[in-house]
Parts: sequence; C-alpha cells; structure tokens
Amino acid sequence: VDIVELGTPLIFRRGLSIVDEIRGLYPKLIILADLKIIDAGEHEACIAYQAGVDIVTALGVAPDETLLGVLQAAEKFQRQVMVDLMQVQDPLARSRWLYQQGCDYICVHLAHDLQKQASSPLSTLQFLREMLPQARFAVAGGIQPGTIELLAPLEPAIVIVGKAITGALHPGEVARKIKEKMAS
Amino acid sequence: VDIVELGTPLIFRRGLSIVDEIRGLYPKLIILADLKIIDAGEHEACIAYQAGVDIVTALGVAPDETLLGVLQAAEKFQRQVMVDLMQVQDPLARSRWLYQQGCDYICVHLAHDLQKQASSPLSTLQFLREMLPQARFAVAGGIQPGTIELLAPLEPAIVIVGKAITGALHPGEVARKIKEKMAS
Repeated sequence: VDIVELGTPLIFRRGLSIVDEIRGLYPKLIILADLKIIDAGEHEACIAYQAGVDIVTALGVAPDETLLGVLQAAEKFQRQVMVDLMQVQDPLARSRWLYQQGCDYICVHLAHDLQKQASSPLSTLQFLREMLPQARFAVAGGIQPGTIELLAPLEPAIVIVGKAITGALHPGEVARKIKEKMAS
Repeated sequence: VDIVELGTPLIFRRGLSIVDEIRGLYPKLIILADLKIIDAGEHEACIAYQAGVDIVTALGVAPDETLLGVLQAAEKFQRQVMVDLMQVQDPLARSRWLYQQGCDYICVHLAHDLQKQASSPLSTLQFLREMLPQARFAVAGGIQPGTIELLAPLEPAIVIVGKAITGALHPGEVARKIKEKMAS
C-alpha cells in the first residue's frame, strides 16, 4: 500500500499522537487522517498537519468557509486535503466547486452504514469522472479485489480499501492483489 | 457548569483516553464528547460510551441508519445522544424525525466558521421550539452572557458556551453569571 489511513474510530480512541508511532513503523507511507472536518476547518486541519499528517479529510457537507480554511491550512503546511462527498446532495456541483478551489482529492464514498442498501460508489464516480475529467478522485466504501476491474477504467487517484484488507485472513496478499489489478 | 464538553479538536489531539482524566478532576460533571458522528454510528458511539462518555454528539446530516445506530448504542449503555443540526437543509423535518426516534437533545448550532456572517442560532431555535414544544433542545454558537436573556424564554435544555467562558479573563465568573441568568 502507498497510504495508511488512520480511521475515525482509531483517532477517537487514541488521538493524533498515534501519528508518530505509525510514522516510526512505516516511514515511507503517506499518512491520511480521516477527521471528517465539518467546522473550525483551519484550526482542526492545523492540529493534524502539526501532528505530522500528510492528508486530512473534510466533509463536502461542511460550509464553504470551513473547507476554504482546511485548504488554507494545507497550503501553509504544504500538505493535502481530501474532501468526502458523503451525504452531499449535489455531488457534481460540490465537486466542481472543490476542483476550482484546488482540493487535492474528491472522495466518492459509500457510507459504511449504507452499504447494506446500495451496491457501490461506482456509478457516482463514473458520472463525476465524465463531467470533471481533470479532477483527482478517491473512491471508498465496500471495495474488494473484484471491484478493481470496474474501477480501474475510471482512473481514481486513490482507492481506499478497508475491511477487504483488514478483515482478511492474509491481508498482505489481498493488498498485493489489489495493487496488481490497479497496475494492469 | 453541569456538563463538561470535550471539544472535537481536543478529541483529535488526545483521543477519548482523556475521559478518565477529566472524570478524575470533575467527578460530578456530565461528560459530553463532541464526536460529530456521521458514519459507523453504533461502532463509534460504543467506543465513546465504553470510554465513559455520558453524551455523544452525532450530525443531523448523517444517514438515518447512522443516527439509529448511535441511539441503539446509547440505549445499550443507558447514556445519551445529542444530534447537531449543523448544515441540515430542513431543520424542522430532521428535528421531528429525531424527536420521534427518541433523540435526547437536538442541538441548534451556528457553526464556528459561519459566526462572522450570521448573528445567532436564536431564530432557528425559536421556530423549532414553537413547532416541537415537547423536544429538548441544546443551543450553541457564539453564546455570551448577554444572549441568555433572549434564549431563556425558549427554554433550551442545554446552553453550550465556548469562547465566552474559555476566552474570558475570569472564566468562573462568566460561567456563574450565565447560570444565574438561566435560573432567573
């Protein structure tokens, strides 16, 4: 893997002091903190960047001011921002605005709690990719090795895989399989 | 004060292990953790309740499934839930649904990053209070001692005060003043 994600539950449990520990274990990996910022954008992003985080997440449903604050913090620290489209009513309008503001990654995310109902974030990614060919997308939510063939043509910059790796009997093998499929 | 709020930035910094420390310092206070849950509702709320939190916050913009998960966790642990209406498009419809689901507190919250533009969360609280006279509301966002006279007739169950206390030269005095005004 290229990026290690500090998930929201882990951050709630341990706080961002865990960044140093992870950096020590995996000095070459990019560290993403899934903070899902919705308010006090600049302040909260600065806390994460100061703690050593490379990519901070914020919510697309946040006020514009909050997201602009997160982007300002990222510029100050020369780090990156991923905005999660979870629960955004008009993903295209929000993505267009985010792209114009210089957001590094726009994440098409099927919420964990909705994965029983909906099948995959694929159709939304397909639509946004067509409308905004220049933007860099991430994709998350129930992704498995078998999903990669369908995702690869849509050229996501980042594919976020959770349970399919962390819940596997042999996590390393699954991760390698996914990387191979992405490269081919 | 009756409740001590562990703010989102503090939780990001230190994690919920701080709950024990705060409980040791203020054994009689209710502890609220401003997690702003938007996904994995039951899982994330359980982490907080297990850590000893009394009231967990979730976002009104979260999927119904997420909020129902948070409420389930609260029932299991016999604790409480506050749902924050921040960025909710239709506060009345969401509040009515939350009230029907047994949500303990509905928080009318003027986001920190919007406090330069809007004046106060007062008019929204007034409207919701009229429409849902039985619901218990919390109110947050730029509240100062001078705001209390206007808020008191709307009978909020909880008034959340941040900077006006934490940024004061004499925080204790400001807190006492606010409590007096609420009682009178």
